[in-house]
Amino acid sequence: MAVGFIERISMKKFEKKEIYKKSKDISRWYTDVVLKSELADYGPARGTMVIRPYGFAIWERVQEIFNKMMKDYGVENAYFPLFIPYSLLEKEKEHVKGFSPELAVVTHGGGKKLKEPLVVRPTSETIMYEMYSKWIHSWRDLPVLINQWNNVVRWEMRTYLFLRTTEFLWQEGHTAHKTEEKAMEMVLKALNWYREIYEKYFAMPVLYGAKSEAERFAGAKATYAIEALMPDGKALQAATSHNLGQNFSKVFDISFQDKNGKNQYVWQTSWGLTTRALGGLFLVHGDDNGLVLPPKIAPIQVVIVPIYKDANKKRVLKYAEKIEEKLQSELRVKLDKREEYTPGYKFNEWELKGVPLRLEIGEKELVESKVKAVKRVDMVGQIVLGIDDLVTQVRKLLDGIQISLFKRAEKFLKENTYKTDSYDEFKKIMGTKKGFIKALWCGNPDCETKIKEETKATTRALPFDERDKKGKCIYCKKEAIGQWIFAQAY
Amino acid sequence: MAVGFIERISMKKFEKKEIYKKSKDISRWYTDVVLKSELADYGPARGTMVIRPYGFAIWERVQEIFNKMMKDYGVENAYFPLFIPYSLLEKEKEHVKGFSPELAVVTHGGGKKLKEPLVVRPTSETIMYEMYSKWIHSWRDLPVLINQWNNVVRWEMRTYLFLRTTEFLWQEGHTAHKTEEKAMEMVLKALNWYREIYEKYFAMPVLYGAKSEAERFAGAKATYAIEALMPDGKALQAATSHNLGQNFSKVFDISFQDKNGKNQYVWQTSWGLTTRALGGLFLVHGDDNGLVLPPKIAPIQVVIVPIYKDANKKRVLKYAEKIEEKLQSELRVKLDKREEYTPGYKFNEWELKGVPLRLEIGEKELVESKVKAVKRVDMVGQIVLGIDDLVTQVRKLLDGIQISLFKRAEKFLKENTYKTDSYDEFKKIMGTKKGFIKALWCGNPDCETKIKEETKATTRALPFDERDKKGKCIYCKKEAIGQWIFAQAY
Repeated sequence: MAVGFIERISMKKFEKKEIYKKSKDISRWYTDVVLKSELADYGPARGTMVIRPYGFAIWERVQEIFNKMMKDYGVENAYFPLFIPYSLLEKEKEHVKGFSPELAVVTHGGGKKLKEPLVVRPTSETIMYEMYSKWIHSWRDLPVLINQWNNVVRWEMRTYLFLRTTEFLWQEGHTAHKTEEKAMEMVLKALNWYREIYEKYFAMPVLYGAKSEAERFAGAKATYAIEALMPDGKALQAATSHNLGQNFSKVFDISFQDKNGKNQYVWQTSWGLTTRALGGLFLVHGDDNGLVLPPKIAPIQVVIVPIYKDANKKRVLKYAEKIEEKLQSELRVKLDKREEYTPGYKFNEWELKGVPLRLEIGEKELVESKVKAVKRVDMVGQIVLGIDDLVTQVRKLLDGIQISLFKRAEKFLKENTYKTDSYDEFKKIMGTKKGFIKALWCGNPDCETKIKEETKATTRALPFDERDKKGKCIYCKKEAIGQWIFAQAY
Repeated sequence: MAVGFIERISMKKFEKKEIYKKSKDISRWYTDVVLKSELADYGPARGTMVIRPYGFAIWERVQEIFNKMMKDYGVENAYFPLFIPYSLLEKEKEHVKGFSPELAVVTHGGGKKLKEPLVVRPTSETIMYEMYSKWIHSWRDLPVLINQWNNVVRWEMRTYLFLRTTEFLWQEGHTAHKTEEKAMEMVLKALNWYREIYEKYFAMPVLYGAKSEAERFAGAKATYAIEALMPDGKALQAATSHNLGQNFSKVFDISFQDKNGKNQYVWQTSWGLTTRALGGLFLVHGDDNGLVLPPKIAPIQVVIVPIYKDANKKRVLKYAEKIEEKLQSELRVKLDKREEYTPGYKFNEWELKGVPLRLEIGEKELVESKVKAVKRVDMVGQIVLGIDDLVTQVRKLLDGIQISLFKRAEKFLKENTYKTDSYDEFKKIMGTKKGFIKALWCGNPDCETKIKEETKATTRALPFDERDKKGKCIYCKKEAIGQWIFAQAY
């Protein structure tokens, strides 16, 4: 009950839904905007979150987009149980070691104490692979390309809406292949899907590459990640894709008879994108007036606000409905006809909710067969549009908004990405403005630990094209294994 | 581990995927067909089930159809937490009494014993309404129309795939209204959506009406249900819609200021459809050769099987691809190009999986610019179609299949619905062929209990148009409160 209680009480007071300034305190702004734009709320149990309809509509957009990508490639959705017998989880030693401290455990069911406790899934490798070993026997059964959209639980003491919650929603893809090459192809494919989601839909430029040993998924041979930079200079791990090698297939005995009759273990991958991604989206684009949603992901792309008096109400509404009808075949449009709120209140609400484009329709627009458009991203420069060819004009405006949001974020990323071979400078940057730092590193976990202790920064990823960079480790001056990206992480 | 172990072992033996005959033992047939058509499998923990991609694709169709119905009406999707503090669940006394015996309880989290145990949601009334009381203050906030698609847990000792599992998937709609009239409108709207899902998409005729006190949802003022008849003469409760009255709003303090400034409690409804529905679908239409899926719900409506030798392989495949392309803009089509299986194997597999229509394409069809169509429902009467206007012809065939499945089920329902005022006849029917029995009943739970003890039958529903039927109770001969439907229930 403790977390967020103050925020909850204070909400009732704000009739006009005022929010803290992002420029003053990004963390308070974030919580405030998430609560007041009705994206989410705190759940009654510690660490839990309610995703409200407006927030969930954005997640449904992510599902729609990602399902299309996956299904076109041949991935199928399925559903595996929530409860994992503890003995199954234990099978892969690294895996259970990594997840043990975060588990929620069911000890009682149907009024009785259970003989073996059940773990609420923190991820589904073990339960899925137990099934894979039953289903896979021959080369004919491969590849297996299965995904599920579900809820997982990893115990957290402090909630940060979307970014850190005990229960979260995600998709987890789990594939099995005949060769390591095919598995690696899948790992990179998923990583590319994630990049596309972020760059094309979320308008967020990202970096990506391989993880260090310390940051690797428990049980994986190698982990690859997408990393995004937040406005406070911290990095958000935005999605991960794992090459599991044969670690799990050997433990769970997932083997197949190849075309020559020889028995072989499968090569596996897993990859996931969580509701955490939405937290990054809100943080990156939002401003002092609330959310700013990129048109390609916004549940409502265009809101129409009619402005009328009693005398012209009927005519204005009719005109507004005509505009709505024109647009709704191709765009996600909402005509806000609520009578209990003023146009001013509506402007404020839809700005807070980050709708990319507002169309205002009053007597003047009606008479002149025009509409007035206001872009959420800068909220200046009202644009007057004729109603012929309105769909094309609006689409062009939305495309422009999408591009300008990406460019703004890209500029920020560039300005806050540094490269240095001086550890003093490294420390200075992390102690002040933060951001991404590119630096050579030897690969030794001890160096990484010390850098973290002294600067709070960890390795985020080794970009593919910087694997061959030669030189001395920024910390210990021994031979480096490439130029890594460091940052303080969320 | 115990349940289904035998089935799992035996599966490996069936290279040809033979199944038990439905006509011989419907229960063995059902388990067999669900496992072998790869709809689902047993999960490692007792009572749990894995929904495999083919089964999940059907659930995704249900989601697609039901989301459209709900969203057009203004219902929005959201997500509420999995864990409910026990103290919240306890608030509504009838509710906690009803669900207590079925709960799974988390006692440990993050390596520590919890101060207050958390219940894994058996349904979400309590956790959602705790939030509603925070969100609803004014008449302007109403109605609240929220749905969620999620997993719930109700402890079961014996698994029956889809029909009875400890964890299942469902949608649960939860609405709050200003008046009881509006709430009742919603209750009936949801009931009608369910009826449409069953009748129009599942090709299953259903009965519906009010539940008796004993069969009512724990905490509801009234429950309405959809009931379907299975081939073994037993009833399946296929969906429910509850009028919650103000039972929960008073306990959770969900109140609003009306237009006159007066404080009032909201009127609430909840309604749900579960993955159990799919069990009914499979039971009703399937036959000795496997599943039979109605075209409107089938993930694959048409499968194309090319038949070729080395010499004409390229030409036949090219022709098959042309056919696939023609159909796929409007229908869910699969061209089975797998080289490792014979056409005979493929026929068998797609029959087992219940694909409504098979198109065979070989040299003869290629030369004559035709295709050969075989309907799954009767598997006789091969139909030759010309390729001009193929989409229209195939669509017509599918529509015909949908209708004939409904009619067949309707005939069965009619033939197995009896009406009697003799308790001797009632007992005789329930002891032999079973089915639905319409009979007058006094409304006294004692009579219902005795009838159940003596015949295994319970009241299933009081149809709306049989509420006014007068006469004597079939059991105690006191004044009846309408003509009820009785059946043995799944």
